[in-house]
Amino acid sequence: MTVTHARRRERLAALLPACEADAILVTGGVNVRYLTGLDSSNAALLVRADARAALATDSRYAETARRVCPDVEVIEDRDVTGVLATAVLDGSPPGRLAVEAHRMTADVYFTLGGDLLRLSGLVESVRRVKDEEEIGLLRTACELTDRAFAELLPTLRPGLTEREVARTLERLMADLGADAPAFATIVASGPNGSIPHHSPSDRPLARGDLVTMDFGARYGGYHADMTRTVAIGEPAGWQRELYDLVRAAQRAGREAVRPGAATHEVDAAARDLIAAAGHGGHFGHGLGHGVGLEIHEVPFLSPVPAAAKTEPGRGHARLEDRVPVTVEPGVYIPGRGGVRIEDTLVTRDDGPELLTRTTKELLVL
Amino acid sequence: MTVTHARRRERLAALLPACEADAILVTGGVNVRYLTGLDSSNAALLVRADARAALATDSRYAETARRVCPDVEVIEDRDVTGVLATAVLDGSPPGRLAVEAHRMTADVYFTLGGDLLRLSGLVESVRRVKDEEEIGLLRTACELTDRAFAELLPTLRPGLTEREVARTLERLMADLGADAPAFATIVASGPNGSIPHHSPSDRPLARGDLVTMDFGARYGGYHADMTRTVAIGEPAGWQRELYDLVRAAQRAGREAVRPGAATHEVDAAARDLIAAAGHGGHFGHGLGHGVGLEIHEVPFLSPVPAAAKTEPGRGHARLEDRVPVTVEPGVYIPGRGGVRIEDTLVTRDDGPELLTRTTKELLVL
Repeated sequence: MTVTHARRRERLAALLPACEADAILVTGGVNVRYLTGLDSSNAALLVRADARAALATDSRYAETARRVCPDVEVIEDRDVTGVLATAVLDGSPPGRLAVEAHRMTADVYFTLGGDLLRLSGLVESVRRVKDEEEIGLLRTACELTDRAFAELLPTLRPGLTEREVARTLERLMADLGADAPAFATIVASGPNGSIPHHSPSDRPLARGDLVTMDFGARYGGYHADMTRTVAIGEPAGWQRELYDLVRAAQRAGREAVRPGAATHEVDAAARDLIAAAGHGGHFGHGLGHGVGLEIHEVPFLSPVPAAAKTEPGRGHARLEDRVPVTVEPGVYIPGRGGVRIEDTLVTRDDGPELLTRTTKELLVL
Repeated sequence: MTVTHARRRERLAALLPACEADAILVTGGVNVRYLTGLDSSNAALLVRADARAALATDSRYAETARRVCPDVEVIEDRDVTGVLATAVLDGSPPGRLAVEAHRMTADVYFTLGGDLLRLSGLVESVRRVKDEEEIGLLRTACELTDRAFAELLPTLRPGLTEREVARTLERLMADLGADAPAFATIVASGPNGSIPHHSPSDRPLARGDLVTMDFGARYGGYHADMTRTVAIGEPAGWQRELYDLVRAAQRAGREAVRPGAATHEVDAAARDLIAAAGHGGHFGHGLGHGVGLEIHEVPFLSPVPAAAKTEPGRGHARLEDRVPVTVEPGVYIPGRGGVRIEDTLVTRDDGPELLTRTTKELLVL
């Protein structure tokens, strides 16, 4: 992996002159991991415009850092940001230092002092397009997720609580080889289905419920994300109608995912169908998001044209080749319930590669 | 729980006048949870000096927020910090707004603009001393952790990999009712034991290994933290000596944990024994840390007198009654291995309450 990480640092370094920076202090843990392979809760990386790099971490991680990153200078110091910033700000001549203002607390920013260049989203812009090694890890993460769901289905029955279903899913993913759940599993049954991010409760599944499960495996650091809504017993007419609507919107969204597409247009492809059916007010979140070393990362597929966003790293308006995203429209009706269907897929020049392979037929259990 | 949360907000509000703040914008997710009961990845809370509060979150969490916090105004807005800050900065008259500079990115800080008061660690200082409800949750978390370890022990044998042991521990905790692992389980065998935060690898346990396991259950949001080192087969003389040293240091550390003790003196009680045995250079981390809604929180038991620390919230030099902390000395010898022993305990006026109950005899398996 060392060659891969060195290449990533070179891509980052090549962006620095245009930002008028001599070096960038990378403080986002996941960005440090991307650029070095080191997974640490206290590490920072300095990358200079000539691609020389130094990694600072404390004694807990120093031995691992030297093993994982033999081609990077490792500095053992608790004050990981201070020691690296000083090397640039007090160098001879002093350099112009960029910081990840979105991955650094205000406290650390003011402690560093000096004339810092606030940059946001630069490493994320490098991370957006994945290499095939990354896509391979994500493909495996999605396979584990699909298989866990297939093994869960025969066990679903009225009386099981949402919490029990969530635990079973997480255990199945672990048994199949996941590092960990990619995020806290959502199981929302019956009326709870109207809460997009419902925490699994002790409510037992009941006949007549729609049950939405949103979950995924993390594998090699990469995050799968999948949602399915199933029916416990024969669904009522309104439930099937809602399902068919979301399914059609999800298909339209997937079909809009291609290199060159604007993120808000992909969102609109699905959202317009939902709005036309009178449920525009019941779909309060974006259509999807990038996935990779984080469960939510750029690009974000949402109604606001990306250029108008103020949030860091959200300014990339068009998809490129090899960008993994989720497509996850939902309709949520307060007091009644909801439906969400979500796949993880990757943009490809010859049409998207669907990583989530589970059927999107309404499963009646 | 609503009464509890209201009381916590009142304790926070009472601190604001001395800080010359009219209100504080709470942006740390875990601090928002502590003050409201809402567990959300995108929420912020405004608490005014008169204890009136407003909670902002996006559409995914709004319904839950209204249910969990019926006594707090809930504002549904994606820009959770902006909407709350504006209410104070543009009020009539405009108020003086404190922000959690250690729980807010530099980006958000500069986006808010205005004349903000940078405060760090104020909510953490309220969280430091736990109420009995919190200690009860932590006690349960530690019980689950002890029980999982007891169930693990009969399964340990040469040939199992570190990763398999970690997975078994995490599964046992889930089966016993944990929400999730409190942190990524550490299993470090043989020479890997010299890396305090080793990630479980495919190395199989072998006869003659010391194996260090650092793990814990999260329950009701509260984090247990426990470490034991066991021997696979009869230990060599140097292994038993190392174990006895760390065990003695751990006991000395525990005995120093009492209301009124200075955090660096508690650390010294254990560290001095290790240094006297010639291993001062092999114990590179602090003796312990607070636990609660976070796995690492104030107070930190470390060699540097707390007053000299620049890190936010680390300035509380003396323990009070009802402060849960870990005591976890370790000795790490590069190339050979290491020993760490860790309990979670709570300061009490009549002597510490030990929450981790597993034996500290050297277990030879």
